[in-house]
Amino acid sequence: MNAPIAKFFPISDPIPFKGRDSKEPLTFKWYDPDAKVLGKRMEDHLRFAACYWHSFCWQGNDPFGGQSFERPWFGDGDALTLAKMKADVAFEMFRLLRVPFFTFHDRDVAPEGASFAESNRNLRTIIDLFHQKMEQTKVKLLWGTANLFSHRRYMAGAATNPNPEVFAWAAAQVKNVLEATHELGGANYVLWGGREGYETLLNTDLKRELDQFGRFLNLVVEHKHKIGFKGTILIEPKPREPTKHQYDFDTASVFGFLKAYGLEKEIKVNIENNHATLAGHSFEHEIALATALGILGSIDMNRGDPQLGWDTDQFPNNIPETALALYYILQAGGFTTGGLNFDAKIRRQSLDPADLLYAHAGAMDVCARALTIAGRMIEDGALDKHVKDRYAEWDSADGKAILAGKVSLADLAKRVEGSNSDPKPHSGKQEYLENLVNSYL
Amino acid sequence: MNAPIAKFFPISDPIPFKGRDSKEPLTFKWYDPDAKVLGKRMEDHLRFAACYWHSFCWQGNDPFGGQSFERPWFGDGDALTLAKMKADVAFEMFRLLRVPFFTFHDRDVAPEGASFAESNRNLRTIIDLFHQKMEQTKVKLLWGTANLFSHRRYMAGAATNPNPEVFAWAAAQVKNVLEATHELGGANYVLWGGREGYETLLNTDLKRELDQFGRFLNLVVEHKHKIGFKGTILIEPKPREPTKHQYDFDTASVFGFLKAYGLEKEIKVNIENNHATLAGHSFEHEIALATALGILGSIDMNRGDPQLGWDTDQFPNNIPETALALYYILQAGGFTTGGLNFDAKIRRQSLDPADLLYAHAGAMDVCARALTIAGRMIEDGALDKHVKDRYAEWDSADGKAILAGKVSLADLAKRVEGSNSDPKPHSGKQEYLENLVNSYL
Amino acid sequence: MNAPIAKFFPISDPIPFKGRDSKEPLTFKWYDPDAKVLGKRMEDHLRFAACYWHSFCWQGNDPFGGQSFERPWFGDGDALTLAKMKADVAFEMFRLLRVPFFTFHDRDVAPEGASFAESNRNLRTIIDLFHQKMEQTKVKLLWGTANLFSHRRYMAGAATNPNPEVFAWAAAQVKNVLEATHELGGANYVLWGGREGYETLLNTDLKRELDQFGRFLNLVVEHKHKIGFKGTILIEPKPREPTKHQYDFDTASVFGFLKAYGLEKEIKVNIENNHATLAGHSFEHEIALATALGILGSIDMNRGDPQLGWDTDQFPNNIPETALALYYILQAGGFTTGGLNFDAKIRRQSLDPADLLYAHAGAMDVCARALTIAGRMIEDGALDKHVKDRYAEWDSADGKAILAGKVSLADLAKRVEGSNSDPKPHSGKQEYLENLVNSYL
Amino acid sequence: MNAPIAKFFPISDPIPFKGRDSKEPLTFKWYDPDAKVLGKRMEDHLRFAACYWHSFCWQGNDPFGGQSFERPWFGDGDALTLAKMKADVAFEMFRLLRVPFFTFHDRDVAPEGASFAESNRNLRTIIDLFHQKMEQTKVKLLWGTANLFSHRRYMAGAATNPNPEVFAWAAAQVKNVLEATHELGGANYVLWGGREGYETLLNTDLKRELDQFGRFLNLVVEHKHKIGFKGTILIEPKPREPTKHQYDFDTASVFGFLKAYGLEKEIKVNIENNHATLAGHSFEHEIALATALGILGSIDMNRGDPQLGWDTDQFPNNIPETALALYYILQAGGFTTGGLNFDAKIRRQSLDPADLLYAHAGAMDVCARALTIAGRMIEDGALDKHVKDRYAEWDSADGKAILAGKVSLADLAKRVEGSNSDPKPHSGKQEYLENLVNSYL
Repeated sequence: MNAPIAKFFPISDPIPFKGRDSKEPLTFKWYDPDAKVLGKRMEDHLRFAACYWHSFCWQGNDPFGGQSFERPWFGDGDALTLAKMKADVAFEMFRLLRVPFFTFHDRDVAPEGASFAESNRNLRTIIDLFHQKMEQTKVKLLWGTANLFSHRRYMAGAATNPNPEVFAWAAAQVKNVLEATHELGGANYVLWGGREGYETLLNTDLKRELDQFGRFLNLVVEHKHKIGFKGTILIEPKPREPTKHQYDFDTASVFGFLKAYGLEKEIKVNIENNHATLAGHSFEHEIALATALGILGSIDMNRGDPQLGWDTDQFPNNIPETALALYYILQAGGFTTGGLNFDAKIRRQSLDPADLLYAHAGAMDVCARALTIAGRMIEDGALDKHVKDRYAEWDSADGKAILAGKVSLADLAKRVEGSNSDPKPHSGKQEYLENLVNSYL
Repeated sequence: MNAPIAKFFPISDPIPFKGRDSKEPLTFKWYDPDAKVLGKRMEDHLRFAACYWHSFCWQGNDPFGGQSFERPWFGDGDALTLAKMKADVAFEMFRLLRVPFFTFHDRDVAPEGASFAESNRNLRTIIDLFHQKMEQTKVKLLWGTANLFSHRRYMAGAATNPNPEVFAWAAAQVKNVLEATHELGGANYVLWGGREGYETLLNTDLKRELDQFGRFLNLVVEHKHKIGFKGTILIEPKPREPTKHQYDFDTASVFGFLKAYGLEKEIKVNIENNHATLAGHSFEHEIALATALGILGSIDMNRGDPQLGWDTDQFPNNIPETALALYYILQAGGFTTGGLNFDAKIRRQSLDPADLLYAHAGAMDVCARALTIAGRMIEDGALDKHVKDRYAEWDSADGKAILAGKVSLADLAKRVEGSNSDPKPHSGKQEYLENLVNSYL
Repeated sequence: MNAPIAKFFPISDPIPFKGRDSKEPLTFKWYDPDAKVLGKRMEDHLRFAACYWHSFCWQGNDPFGGQSFERPWFGDGDALTLAKMKADVAFEMFRLLRVPFFTFHDRDVAPEGASFAESNRNLRTIIDLFHQKMEQTKVKLLWGTANLFSHRRYMAGAATNPNPEVFAWAAAQVKNVLEATHELGGANYVLWGGREGYETLLNTDLKRELDQFGRFLNLVVEHKHKIGFKGTILIEPKPREPTKHQYDFDTASVFGFLKAYGLEKEIKVNIENNHATLAGHSFEHEIALATALGILGSIDMNRGDPQLGWDTDQFPNNIPETALALYYILQAGGFTTGGLNFDAKIRRQSLDPADLLYAHAGAMDVCARALTIAGRMIEDGALDKHVKDRYAEWDSADGKAILAGKVSLADLAKRVEGSNSDPKPHSGKQEYLENLVNSYL
Repeated sequence: MNAPIAKFFPISDPIPFKGRDSKEPLTFKWYDPDAKVLGKRMEDHLRFAACYWHSFCWQGNDPFGGQSFERPWFGDGDALTLAKMKADVAFEMFRLLRVPFFTFHDRDVAPEGASFAESNRNLRTIIDLFHQKMEQTKVKLLWGTANLFSHRRYMAGAATNPNPEVFAWAAAQVKNVLEATHELGGANYVLWGGREGYETLLNTDLKRELDQFGRFLNLVVEHKHKIGFKGTILIEPKPREPTKHQYDFDTASVFGFLKAYGLEKEIKVNIENNHATLAGHSFEHEIALATALGILGSIDMNRGDPQLGWDTDQFPNNIPETALALYYILQAGGFTTGGLNFDAKIRRQSLDPADLLYAHAGAMDVCARALTIAGRMIEDGALDKHVKDRYAEWDSADGKAILAGKVSLADLAKRVEGSNSDPKPHSGKQEYLENLVNSYL
């Protein structure tokens, strides 16, 4: 029944690429899926995904205000019927935006039932519907994930809950969503530990909780292999919110955790811009660090507000910042199974269906423009050359010998003591390099 | 020549313990070295150390103001003569405060010379003097460390410098200070990577720098074993300042780094309160996490200002907060080689020599009082019991089986699906526990 | 129908004062209403109020989780009947806690109706009930306030809304609550401008909005005088959250605003601890500044978490920090119409009715203990004397002449140039004073 | 003696405008002084100034590191001779950069002497030199200011010092610099209260200090009129650093202060980007608020680092952010006496003289490009129209009557109660407007 869909959005044809001089709001000025950057189609580079939750489940509430969005599927009625109506609109949006991927939590798409079994039947119904819709629209699944944080049973954690029965629930839920993701051909599976942390140390046994969490992730990895899922398992770091402290604080913390539980070859990170900044890092730092550690998986694109201390999940709008993030993605070789998921929501006051389109299309243009900038930076190679030159001495025989472990502390000390060694620093040229980056804009 | 010392401080006898009703500023109200807490002397629990740099090297400068402190050893004159005068006053302060330990950087105690060799000779002279003074005063060395951040040669890092010659310099400097520390019977050796990080990613090769840093620390550990130093090697995490990003961001990051370079059995952390808070953590979080990860070494006691975004290094003055930190230290079994170093400085406006005594003695009293509170919390066991009870289900056969890896994701899912499992959350009792903690104050 | 009440809380007698050695959780260890501090009863000093919203309206939701609290009045049923049940439990809690005051928003106590008139009738019903309950329990009203932020009509502001019809709605709502407050003998009336600010400057006319807000407050003040309300009108500063920027950012901003619209003699501030810290100030700063500017009205007692960037509204639990805040209140002469309202909520995981009692009673004890400390600091006068001595030179003839405007810049320059003036700084003695404060704990 | 100058910078001809395709680092790609934006020359819009202190006085120190820059005038030698050498290089830089203005503190340009009189003679010597150099280069003075924060005499404040003799010193210093500024034809005079605040409330009498500060500013204003200085007196807000709390926290605080001391018609604000962000505001917020309050004076252009909690004073490099700031400047009618001063410093590792040129030229290009963007936004009027439309109802008769004070709270309530008023919110269109802004990039 497509009647409500046709009326929901103000347009019925996919948003066209019209070039940078277009003045029409609902056109792409920069995002041309087939345009090539570094010899590869934009669409294949960016692997855009739209998420289900922010656009179709969030009602506009904030800690001091109630629902502001009015959507037909928020009303009273049979929960599954409303879920289907929501799916209709969601896939209509994916079609209009021409995003090749989407992402979802189980509870976004299907209502929680009175029992685990009923919840699963609900999910089953929607997954079947998704098969059809994905077939029709050619929209694919970037990743699925289980919501282990909204229900009160998870208030003290899922894997890290003091009650093993909750651990089991979480395990059961993940098993189902992982299998659904596999069945839908999902490219990845994500775990976000929004409640895997603590509110107060006073009631927390940190060591136990870390061990529980390590066990849980091993179970997930084992199951992935058992069912033959070839996608990547991803952890999404975030330092805090909802809890005071989350164990997946940032990329460096996640890496240490993975190493401790023998998972560093099995799990990668899904890095979110706003989570990076809440942790005190730039987005590009998290990307570059994950690359250095070999665990870069995918990204959640959005932005925070530098004046606000919580996860605002705004759509990206700063072109030079986005260009820098994409530069480091390209430096790392680009996405493999990962992609660029807009984990972003329109503002509480953006009431109109059209606002969903403006927000996504604008963000896609920002990313497309940023990609062309990043592509030119890579092509030109000037930035990379500057970095290579800076460390050139380490490629000398002496430098290599140090790194290869062929000289001891005492050898080095003897060398310095016995010479008039007085190394002179060279300019870091930060402003020069910042200008260089701006020259590609 | 002790003449200047006698005049520097307004008292000449060590600060006595006079009990909580004493109104005299220069008496201890709570710190009685011989008083027992949990059957152990306060002095042996707390292992107080005073640091050299803040009290004797810093001149009161801040980013917008010049020297405010006037000390005889800041004047013109022969650098080594001034360094000796400084040592006289430093050890006089240690004696007056009755701290059992001190800590130093090489450049705090002896002037940098025109060459590496001359710097070393300067250091040698002072180390010889320290032997005498330590003998006379019975003050021991908690740890030594090399200053690899103040000189311009280190402006782009020491171990992580783009120039291997700087790496060699740093190695040579650490070798000397590690040996001096060994010779002085130091209980630990500390590495603080204030410049091991970056100012801008634009000129940085993160992977290379991490590898260099990993190599460097392995060299230090190898040398430690070679010379037979039995103390602990410690890394001091800090997220930023002086650099934009430091690799030793926090305990979790350091742990991941140690694991990556095979060092997690060799190196522990020296956790600083103000560094913890700059990284977005509570002090007790860092202590509890290091304990859980098996890398708790020592602590740098101080406090930041929650309204300021930089390292203010103030003396601790909040008794309940300090009690909580010490509770987690006691929970971890207390210090072994580590101790409680006051990495704290008097404010720029605290001009008088007496201010150095007020600051340390007040802080020692805060810690002593906090220790008695923490000791009662441990003795009483109520908090610990609450935590144990909360996780009790994990000690059941089912819980243990999960952690032991005896059940799979599918097993757990079957169990949940096949039952009417509906786990009910229990109150986290945070306010009750906060009241409980306050009841010990 | 009092049946549900009797069962809601685990106790039925008011919490007794049992002294500091009591080990029972539901006793006061420090709060003895009749105990005298500086010759005045604790109850009269502290003027405790419990608020309606956090304890009885909030369902435990956070941005990532749904309802965690289960309360009989959250269920389905006739909204007014549920509102009465809620009132029964609220007044039962006030009675058990022995708080002399309570505070409320219109929408906390009575449901929003289908029209303005119906909302008003609902409020009327509850106000009538409050008359009875206040009579029975002797609990008084510290202040009332109108909720101008939760409903979507206010999403773009109330007084500062781009639509004057919303301004009119807000005006009508305030008129009703102000009159209800007057009728109930409220000591104050509060305005919190949670939506008086902006989400983005791009759609905002700042000047217009400030003028609208100034006009609105003038209307309120005029109406207050018209109806003969003798209480104080209070503005509650907060920098942000829910909006990106709120005009009532902090005390200094509010003062400037009041001066600009001629309101500085009519309106005072209600200062909240967590709002102060979100604005980058200590709580005592805001209190001391409001005192200096002559606009200190009342306080909302709670605490934030220094690691979290949002309004956590936790119950106060740090005794020395609270003591300092109360010291500045006492320095200012104590409360007149104002009081100490616990604008604090139990944590999302504190599920049990008893947690409401633990939280309030523990916080009341913290404040009572802090009051005795602050009282001793005032009595002793040592801190105050130190401050007076520090500025003593300004009480000399020369100092007074400067402040009285009797000397010009040129006079002062001549004096300095013609002399060998070289003013010497004196120690600020911060650590000494911090120790002094700790000595009262 | 121009010999050293010729050698200091790597170029000797002013940086030419070469257009956006130029690849040479030392050319302007966007800054063409004569190009017209909104009918006015770029140079006349932007009124660029370079500051003396960051580029010529700062030695590269940070809280953990010593001097990194090596400049001939930092060496030993006669202080006035070195000051002249510094002036030669400074004016050479102004000439090469083609900035029409410069700015300075007294202590930047001339050494502090052994007495006030000697300091003044030193300043006199340099002011005489400036006359010549300004004549030769046609570089003008945007503003002068007195350094009332670096010397230890000011450690506890200048105007707000507990010692009136320090107040007198500050007054004398300001008198001299104000007169020098007047004599050099300065367009403004700036006061930055870096020490006008407190380190701890425990030793502070806030009310006294505010009164002292109010008196001080009145003295300055009186003297300005006495000597006939026609420039604007500016206060530069900053929330903290160096002190814990500064009275000139932000624009709103300064406005309140000016109102309290009758100065709001006499003094305007000099808004700095990094100071705005440290205070929790966006730069454009401070500009728009100052405009609304009628106190916008001038700007200090730079940027902070959103991950760092201190004043990093980096050169601006984000074009869209700068465009938004300049849009609000243009909206306010542009600068009158004010200008755009680069209160920015090259990074500690940017050792080379060329880095000073890269930094300034890059920043000038960023501002020039931002200006053209802002100019197009103004010309097009779409953003402004959107704002005007949003508030259109306030221009109706009803809206005007409310603002004119013709209706009471009771009138408004009657209107709402008597109708079925149910105002419907409209989309705030934030994302649409953000896209619109991006379309001008």
